[in-house]
Amino acid sequence: MADPKTAPGHRARTQPAKARDADGRVRAVIDAVRPCIDGGRFAVKRVEGEVVIVEADCFTDGHDALRVLLRWRAADDRAESAWQDVEMAHDVNDRWLGSFVAGPPGRYVYTVVAWVDHFLSWHHELERRSDPEDIALAARVGAKLARDALGRAQREDHDALAEWAKRLEQDARRCDGEPQAQALKALALDADFAKLMMRYPDRRFETRWPDALPLLVDRLRARYSAWYELFPRSTSPDPGRDGTLKDCVARLPYVAELGFDVLYLPPIHPIGREKRKGRNNALVAERDDVGSPWAIGAIEGGHKAVHPALGTLDDFRTLVEAAHARGIEIALDIAYQCAPDHPYVKAHPTWFRWRPDGSVQYAENPPKKYQDIYPFDFESEDWRALWDELKSVFEFWIAEGVKIFRVDNPHTKAFPFWEWLIGELKQAHPEVLFLAEAFTRPKVMHRLAKLGYTQSYTYFAWRNTKHELTEYFTELTQGPGREYFRPNVWPNTPDILTEALQFGGRPVFMQRLVLAATLAASYGIYGPAYELLEAAPRDPGSEEYLHSEKYQVRHWDLEQPNSLRAFIARVNRIRRDNPALHADWSLRFFPTDNDQLICYAKATEDGANQIVCVVNLDPHNTHSGWVDLDLAALGIEAAMPYQMHDLISGARFLWQGPRNFVQLDPQRSPAHVFRVHRRVHREHDFDYFL
Amino acid sequence: MADPKTAPGHRARTQPAKARDADGRVRAVIDAVRPCIDGGRFAVKRVEGEVVIVEADCFTDGHDALRVLLRWRAADDRAESAWQDVEMAHDVNDRWLGSFVAGPPGRYVYTVVAWVDHFLSWHHELERRSDPEDIALAARVGAKLARDALGRAQREDHDALAEWAKRLEQDARRCDGEPQAQALKALALDADFAKLMMRYPDRRFETRWPDALPLLVDRLRARYSAWYELFPRSTSPDPGRDGTLKDCVARLPYVAELGFDVLYLPPIHPIGREKRKGRNNALVAERDDVGSPWAIGAIEGGHKAVHPALGTLDDFRTLVEAAHARGIEIALDIAYQCAPDHPYVKAHPTWFRWRPDGSVQYAENPPKKYQDIYPFDFESEDWRALWDELKSVFEFWIAEGVKIFRVDNPHTKAFPFWEWLIGELKQAHPEVLFLAEAFTRPKVMHRLAKLGYTQSYTYFAWRNTKHELTEYFTELTQGPGREYFRPNVWPNTPDILTEALQFGGRPVFMQRLVLAATLAASYGIYGPAYELLEAAPRDPGSEEYLHSEKYQVRHWDLEQPNSLRAFIARVNRIRRDNPALHADWSLRFFPTDNDQLICYAKATEDGANQIVCVVNLDPHNTHSGWVDLDLAALGIEAAMPYQMHDLISGARFLWQGPRNFVQLDPQRSPAHVFRVHRRVHREHDFDYFL
Repeated sequence: MADPKTAPGHRARTQPAKARDADGRVRAVIDAVRPCIDGGRFAVKRVEGEVVIVEADCFTDGHDALRVLLRWRAADDRAESAWQDVEMAHDVNDRWLGSFVAGPPGRYVYTVVAWVDHFLSWHHELERRSDPEDIALAARVGAKLARDALGRAQREDHDALAEWAKRLEQDARRCDGEPQAQALKALALDADFAKLMMRYPDRRFETRWPDALPLLVDRLRARYSAWYELFPRSTSPDPGRDGTLKDCVARLPYVAELGFDVLYLPPIHPIGREKRKGRNNALVAERDDVGSPWAIGAIEGGHKAVHPALGTLDDFRTLVEAAHARGIEIALDIAYQCAPDHPYVKAHPTWFRWRPDGSVQYAENPPKKYQDIYPFDFESEDWRALWDELKSVFEFWIAEGVKIFRVDNPHTKAFPFWEWLIGELKQAHPEVLFLAEAFTRPKVMHRLAKLGYTQSYTYFAWRNTKHELTEYFTELTQGPGREYFRPNVWPNTPDILTEALQFGGRPVFMQRLVLAATLAASYGIYGPAYELLEAAPRDPGSEEYLHSEKYQVRHWDLEQPNSLRAFIARVNRIRRDNPALHADWSLRFFPTDNDQLICYAKATEDGANQIVCVVNLDPHNTHSGWVDLDLAALGIEAAMPYQMHDLISGARFLWQGPRNFVQLDPQRSPAHVFRVHRRVHREHDFDYFL
Repeated sequence: MADPKTAPGHRARTQPAKARDADGRVRAVIDAVRPCIDGGRFAVKRVEGEVVIVEADCFTDGHDALRVLLRWRAADDRAESAWQDVEMAHDVNDRWLGSFVAGPPGRYVYTVVAWVDHFLSWHHELERRSDPEDIALAARVGAKLARDALGRAQREDHDALAEWAKRLEQDARRCDGEPQAQALKALALDADFAKLMMRYPDRRFETRWPDALPLLVDRLRARYSAWYELFPRSTSPDPGRDGTLKDCVARLPYVAELGFDVLYLPPIHPIGREKRKGRNNALVAERDDVGSPWAIGAIEGGHKAVHPALGTLDDFRTLVEAAHARGIEIALDIAYQCAPDHPYVKAHPTWFRWRPDGSVQYAENPPKKYQDIYPFDFESEDWRALWDELKSVFEFWIAEGVKIFRVDNPHTKAFPFWEWLIGELKQAHPEVLFLAEAFTRPKVMHRLAKLGYTQSYTYFAWRNTKHELTEYFTELTQGPGREYFRPNVWPNTPDILTEALQFGGRPVFMQRLVLAATLAASYGIYGPAYELLEAAPRDPGSEEYLHSEKYQVRHWDLEQPNSLRAFIARVNRIRRDNPALHADWSLRFFPTDNDQLICYAKATEDGANQIVCVVNLDPHNTHSGWVDLDLAALGIEAAMPYQMHDLISGARFLWQGPRNFVQLDPQRSPAHVFRVHRRVHREHDFDYFL
């Protein structure tokens, strides 16, 4: 089936000697169209309503003038008439700019065309002419250009063009002396004539950028979302029984109060019994151990079934609808792996790798072994059927109302599979979003984002110092990867209880939450472990939770007085109220004179909403210092005072100039999240001053 | 002829839904193959014998091992068997490296292939296995891999492979306990077995980088050349008559003494009489004015003729041969433009633009006019014939032995023309070199280099301060453009007498020469104006020479005692003797504590030849200061003294540590050009010490 002879050859893109076969009069050059990922191999990402700015280097030989158009259309609509054209304008250094507003979710393409415009060249030259004879001759050239345009003009403009041609020719022939020449020049440069001529350019020798560059437009939640992860089986209010999907419905008001808009559930499918892991990852399970939700599949069903202990498919539907009513979306976890007793193993033995001893190859990375999980064999002869079945898993849950998926370890499945799968699913369901759970090497994470993942987990959990945070978030928000890699930052997950959280106490939980929620437009926490400050590791030096919910049911006391519940609710409300925090690209760091104090700002594009955060990174000590704001970036006049309204404490500070003092006691609040008010009331504001 | 409907459409490069039509088991990912210009649209440039280092990001899903090959071949040889394969090695962060040595001048292509290698994965996993049962099972898997390889193996290896398969299978079945398992593991990891298996990989699911990236290999002079420009008509030793090509032959020993290897002549063709310019660019010529050599063509002929006043075609042949005998190449100037009386104007009226008054459109950029020159109309209906004729001009002179051309104002001719022309000419004559005389905007200059120009003029003439020089040469030698843009730097040209030269006296001529000759592997001067310190401008504030040779004959006194002749000869000898100065990419700047002192180094790749230059940029004052060498980069041990041998003055300095003192009196020499001798004689070197 796979014959190396049929593998595609290497394409040679240059054929220098072929230029003469095309039309050699195509003189405009287009180069470096941006944004562009890997030469157009992958799509740039935007959300609906965002402005897409496209740039290109355009120039031609000599002094002739160019016209440059940005063209865009829906990817599916291949008709030539589907293109929407936007005139691009010269910026500096032969760089041209144009923009359009991203439409509804879906795939689009954009490209650039340019041509040497003889009318515009003539116009620019005429502006600089002063010699009467030159002007008269130029007017006759203009008349000829108008006559040439007749052939391209719509019927209703014929008369006007013909009239212009006639008048220019006549006046040029009569032109005799300086005053007539100046009048003739003014006539030829008439704005109406230019407008008319610009409508009918001679585009015979137009240059087309060879690539239609892809653009993927998502809905807003792709860029701006707050996730809350919980284990359904741990949601029971009654310590005497395990939680169910019905308990999840009852938990929704709590999640809504906290202010999250995505409720993410680890796999809800039947859990395998063969080789089941016990509490704290014990190799052998006790009789009453519930197993890991990621060991998917048992006699009751596989990836399209609901674990009977959690409830029914009907219960799930109820949960989706109840969540929806509160503005919360349910995100499901898709983990493509099977417990040994998953129905697939018997039904589709070719989807697994078999060993010479007749056993199935389980997941391993010697000397580590994961005997409770069988990976799929993506080199199976039967890979097409495997791909189709895996796709049907998503389709099943999409039909049940799920529009957001968190995909487990996508980097251990074949990359071409993801590109195909996400492409197919988003074709039919452009509103569906995918979060890649790949904690792995940077280029692998970026590849998954390029292949189609909407959001990606990040290294945030391990970025703690000012230097680390500044460098990492500058890369995420200003680097070239931002065109396709949308970070979703998590201070904890069921797999990651960082050392920082283990040793920092309540202040570090507050601090990391503020950092996550303000540095990134998308963030999440694994709760109730987070708000209840769960910090004990399984072993010293481990990032695993002790009594991890991955292997056992937990009962959480949400009313615990130390809970961060109110603090988190406040931070999420601040996020909702301030559109500056709904996007990442505006992030800028400002200097402080204390390495434990980090300062950064975000703003909306129009500057109407400005947020400045100052966070004390030391959970143990009060720190004070001076921050240096970039007033120009914040749109503040250096001579005027401005008000900094701390949305966490409610306090308002009057600042002036770039350099201001802050002090943060981590026991009270490790962070200021200031809204900047540029306008301060003064005596001029009072009626009696006038 | 040019129908917009036949213009190529915009290609959509992404077809996500198509992945399933290809083989989904192609799991290796190749990304970011470098060097690569505009996605392979243009060639990277190297000279014969240079090492071409190719990099690529390669990885796959999960933990499997990859094999990655760099493949290269001559561009013309399209047979699959023409590829030469080089195993690439993993560097860091999923980056792989491989290299090959550039062959004889011509076009080549290179690309990358990668595959998930099951033998290598098995080998890596086995290395980490310790459990006896696991080892036994792995050995049986290894036996199966060997049996599978039989089908791909050459006949002479069949027996060996079969024997390995049999032995591994047998020993695995007999394996019973720790000692046998360890012996079995050692057997399976045997180096001979690995070598054999690596020879016959399973490449069915190999990934091929889609592009065959182009490489243009030139001869060494493309990278390393010293140019001397002179006007043949000014070479007469007798003030009573004008110079000829015969006088040029007589001038060759002088040029050789100075150490130049390219002698470049402005156009040697008949000069138009119509609208001829007079001395100092006067609009009306006197009767005895000789005209500009760039106003090409008259009754005696055009671009393929020799000006009768200079001699005959035979004289030219003699000059080419005589120069060759001294290791000097003649470079001709190709200026595609016509005097009004050029034979082309009557023979090919369609190659020019005609105005409504029946006159030909001359070159202009309002309000400037160049009435003595008609540009070609590259939008002519007859453009194919025009291209062919222009190409035949080069072919004519190539047939006369010219292998280097300096092309006048290429940025005012259509870009597709150059790509076609240079491509065609280099296809037939890979040894021919082209220097682009485009002093224009950066992106236009880069485009010409991409299109095929071998070397390019630069902004060097206007880079004077330490900051300007450091920034510009760092960009030229370290920026991405270095892959295709080879700088040729000129302190002066017949068009450019910089302000620096006008006001700096002899020291600035010395200083700028050293900078040009050491910062760039290719440089040139316009002489004898340069070595004779010609510094008077036509008007204050102008960069034009007074009594410019462009419009009149000059007689130069080469024996003038103030001439820089000996100094230039010395600098060129230093260049020849020190291979570090034959290439640009090793250039590194070192800090100094005096902004008038610039310090930089160049080295050969093996570090055997190291040059450090220190130049006093102030022609008026002696400057001293401390330079900070990067000893590690120079391969010098910090604790050991080293010798700095100034190749200009001959003086030798003993230095130690990175920070050392220099003082330069511009009246004596504005520069040190040090050769670094790392090894200093010590007492240990004497016999009696032992």
